[in-house]
Amino acid sequence: MSSNRQLKLGAFMRPVSIHTGAWRYPGAFADANFNFAHLRRFAQTLERARFDAFFMADHLAVLNMPMEALQRSHTVSSFEPFTLLSALSQATERIGLVATASTTFDEPFHVARRFASLDHLSNGRAGWNIVTTSNPDAALNFGLEHHMAHDERYARAREFHDVVTGLWDSWADDAFVRDAASGRYFDPARLHTLAHKGPYFSVRGPLHIARPVQGWPVIVQAGASEPGRQLAAETAEVIFAAHGTLDEGRSFYADVKGRLAALGRERDHLKILPAAFVVVGDTVEEARAIRARLDSLVHWESAIASLSISLGVDASKFDPDRPLPAVPDTNASKSSQQRVIALAEREGFTVRQLAQRLGGYGGLAFVGTAQTIADEMQEWLDSEGSDGFNIMFPWLPGGLDAFADKVVPELQRRGIFRREYEGATLRENLGLPRPANRYFPGPTASGSAAA
Amino acid sequence: MSSNRQLKLGAFMRPVSIHTGAWRYPGAFADANFNFAHLRRFAQTLERARFDAFFMADHLAVLNMPMEALQRSHTVSSFEPFTLLSALSQATERIGLVATASTTFDEPFHVARRFASLDHLSNGRAGWNIVTTSNPDAALNFGLEHHMAHDERYARAREFHDVVTGLWDSWADDAFVRDAASGRYFDPARLHTLAHKGPYFSVRGPLHIARPVQGWPVIVQAGASEPGRQLAAETAEVIFAAHGTLDEGRSFYADVKGRLAALGRERDHLKILPAAFVVVGDTVEEARAIRARLDSLVHWESAIASLSISLGVDASKFDPDRPLPAVPDTNASKSSQQRVIALAEREGFTVRQLAQRLGGYGGLAFVGTAQTIADEMQEWLDSEGSDGFNIMFPWLPGGLDAFADKVVPELQRRGIFRREYEGATLRENLGLPRPANRYFPGPTASGSAAA
Repeated sequence: MSSNRQLKLGAFMRPVSIHTGAWRYPGAFADANFNFAHLRRFAQTLERARFDAFFMADHLAVLNMPMEALQRSHTVSSFEPFTLLSALSQATERIGLVATASTTFDEPFHVARRFASLDHLSNGRAGWNIVTTSNPDAALNFGLEHHMAHDERYARAREFHDVVTGLWDSWADDAFVRDAASGRYFDPARLHTLAHKGPYFSVRGPLHIARPVQGWPVIVQAGASEPGRQLAAETAEVIFAAHGTLDEGRSFYADVKGRLAALGRERDHLKILPAAFVVVGDTVEEARAIRARLDSLVHWESAIASLSISLGVDASKFDPDRPLPAVPDTNASKSSQQRVIALAEREGFTVRQLAQRLGGYGGLAFVGTAQTIADEMQEWLDSEGSDGFNIMFPWLPGGLDAFADKVVPELQRRGIFRREYEGATLRENLGLPRPANRYFPGPTASGSAAA
Repeated sequence: MSSNRQLKLGAFMRPVSIHTGAWRYPGAFADANFNFAHLRRFAQTLERARFDAFFMADHLAVLNMPMEALQRSHTVSSFEPFTLLSALSQATERIGLVATASTTFDEPFHVARRFASLDHLSNGRAGWNIVTTSNPDAALNFGLEHHMAHDERYARAREFHDVVTGLWDSWADDAFVRDAASGRYFDPARLHTLAHKGPYFSVRGPLHIARPVQGWPVIVQAGASEPGRQLAAETAEVIFAAHGTLDEGRSFYADVKGRLAALGRERDHLKILPAAFVVVGDTVEEARAIRARLDSLVHWESAIASLSISLGVDASKFDPDRPLPAVPDTNASKSSQQRVIALAEREGFTVRQLAQRLGGYGGLAFVGTAQTIADEMQEWLDSEGSDGFNIMFPWLPGGLDAFADKVVPELQRRGIFRREYEGATLRENLGLPRPANRYFPGPTASGSAAA
C-alpha cells in the first residue's frame, strides 16, 4: 500500500457526460449540458465530495459528424468556458475551475488576461487546459481554409505558453502600493514590460491585470503524441491522459515522469490523471445493467459509425443482432481492431451491443460497486498507473450523485482521498508549488535567502 | 413636461470612477476598480436603484500615458469584462450587463459565442458595446506594428457586426426538441449554417450555443465621428454619447435620430445616453466643495498634461497658483481652447485648479443637490438632448450611494424614472424589441400574420 499518496480527482464536465446516450437515461436532466441551475448543482455536489477540479473541455465548432448523428448529440449547445466558470466561481468556494483554451485560434494577450481574471475572481482556483485544437472544422470558423499542421501547432503552442506566462509575470506581487497620501498607485520598478518577439507572436505587454493569485493558473495538457508528451513534460502540471488499460497507463506514466529530472522538475510537480468512466451500483450486476441500459440508448447511426471506424470496415452491413463476423484485414490500426474483437468476445456482445458500447464510451471504465471501483483506483495509484483520475459520469444527476455519495466515502475511508481541502487554491490542493515571478523573484526567494 | 418619457440610466463602471483622483478621496475604497467584493456591492446598489445597466468600458493595453502619470492611475489592474460580468450575473437579477468588445482585435466567432453565453447565464441581460479600439498601443499587444486606419476599422466593424448577429441566429428559438423517446436532440431543419465570406471575415458556423435569450444582446455603440454615427444609426440600440453641453446633445440627438426613418427604424428603438459625471451634495455648495476636493487629488503630472493638450501649449511653464495667462494661437482645436479659457474665467480658477479639473474629469457634469440634478436631467429629457444618461460616479462607494439614495428617489418622485423594473431582460427594460431571427422568422411573425 502506498503510504501517503492521495488520489487527485477532476470531474470531466463538458459535456457533463461523455456518453452520447446520457441525456436519454431515465431520470436524466436532458438539458444538463446547457442549464446553469443544473451545472451549479453539479459543481456544488463535486465540491461537497472534495473534487480537485471541475474540468471543461472545449470545442470551437459543432462536432464534426454527419447530421444524422449530430442531431442526437446533447453537446451542440454549450456555455463558453470562461463565462460559465466565472459564474460557477460565485457558487463554489474551493473546487478548481479548469478551462480549455486553444493556442491555435486565440491570442496570448486575451488568454493571459482571461485566466488572470478568472483566477482573481475565484481566489486562486483557475487552471488552463492548453489545447492546439485538432478539429479541422474549427479553422473554418476563423477564416482559415486549411488547418495548421500538427508540428506547427505544437511549436506555436510552446511560444504561446511562454508569452502567456510572461504576461502573467508583468506585475510583482507587491507592485500595488496604493498610497493615497502620495498619490502613487503602483511602483513602476515592480512592473515588467514583456516586449516579446518570436516566430509566431509579437506582444509588447504589460498585462493590465495584477499577477494571478496562484502566480500562474495551473497548467493542464492532454497531448499524447511525442511532441505532446514533451511539451507536457516541459510545461504541464496536470496531464489529462487517455488510456485503455493499466499497462498503458503505467507505460505513459513512466515515460512522462521519466522526462522530468532532465528538465530540472520534481516528479510530484506533474500529476497524471487519466479519464475514467465510472458507473456505480450497489452490486456489480446492477452497475453492469446500468451501463447496458445506457449503451442501449445510443442511436444506431452514432453506434455503427464508431464500430466502422474502429474496425476499418463498413459495419452497417453486419446483422446487428448476431455476433461480430470475421473481419478482413484493413487499414485500421491492428491494435484497435484486435481490441474491439477481444471486447466483443469477452462480453459476448452482438454487433448492436458492440457498436453501442463504442458509440457510448469505449475508453477506460470502472463499473461496479464502491468497493470494486476503489480497488481499481487504488491499484492504479499504487502501481504508478496514475496520480488520480478525471472522472466521467454516465448520466446526470444520478451518476454524479452516486459517485459522490458512495465512491468518495469509500476512498476517504481507505485514506487515499481527502476529507477536507488542504488549501484555498487549486495549486495548494493539488500539491503544486506557486511559481516564482521570473522578473521579480520576490519576498519568498529573498526570505529563504535571509533565513 | 414630457408625458410618459422615462430616463434610462446606465452606470459607467470601468473604471468605477473616471476621475483620476477618486481612489484618494477620504473614505474611498482605493482598490475599488479591482476588488470583486466591492464591485458586487456596487452592482447590487445599482440594481436596488433600478439602473438599466452596469456598463464596462474596456482597454486592450495599459493607458497610453507617461509613467509619471500612469503610476497614479487606479485603472492599470482591471477585471476582463466577460469574466467579471458573468460573476456579477450571479449576484444580481435584473440589471443589464454591458461588455465592451473590440472588432479590431478579436474574432466574430469568439465574440458571438461569449455574448450568447453571458446572455444565457444572466437570463437575458447582456449588451455588446461595439468598439473599434482607438488606442494604438493595443495593436502592439496583438502582433501588429501599425494600428488599422480609422475607415478600415469601421468597415471591418460593420462586417463583424453582421457576422456576429448572423451567428446568433444559427438556431431557431424552438430548435431543441430533446425527445428522449426518439433520441433526437434538435431539429436539423431549425439550424442554419452561416457560411459567411466577406472582405474581412470567412466564418462558416453554426454557433454551438443556442440563440441568446434576448434574440440578440442589446447593441451599444459610442462612435461620434461621421462613420461612427452612421454605423450607430444602422445597427445600435443604445449610443453611449459624450457631450459638453445640452446644445451639443440636442444637435447630436436630432442628427442621429433623424437618420433612423430612412433606415426603416423606429425613433424609440435607439436610446441616446450621454456620459454625465454627477456629484451630489445636500447643498449646491457642498457638492461643489466635494468636487473641488476631488480635483485637488489629481496629481500635478496628470493635470498639467491634460491642460497642455487642451490648450496646445506647454502649460507646465505657467505659474500654477495664478490665473491662466493669455494663450497664443496654436494648433489645438479652437473650440477646445476657447472652452478651457471660458471655464477658467467662469470658475475663477488658478492654473492648478484648471489643470486638475481637466485631469480629473472635464466633460458634462451635474454638480448640486438631488433637486438641481433632477432639474438638469429633466431638461435634457424634455428638450430631446438625450433619452437618459450613463452616470459616472465621483468616488466609490460614497458617490454611488449618494446617487442611489438621493437622486434616484427624486427622479422617481417626478415620474421620470422607474420604481420597479418593467421586464426581466435588458431589452425589455430599455423598451427595445426582440429581433426576429433572420433565418427563422418564428412563432411571433407567423402569429401576427395569423392574427
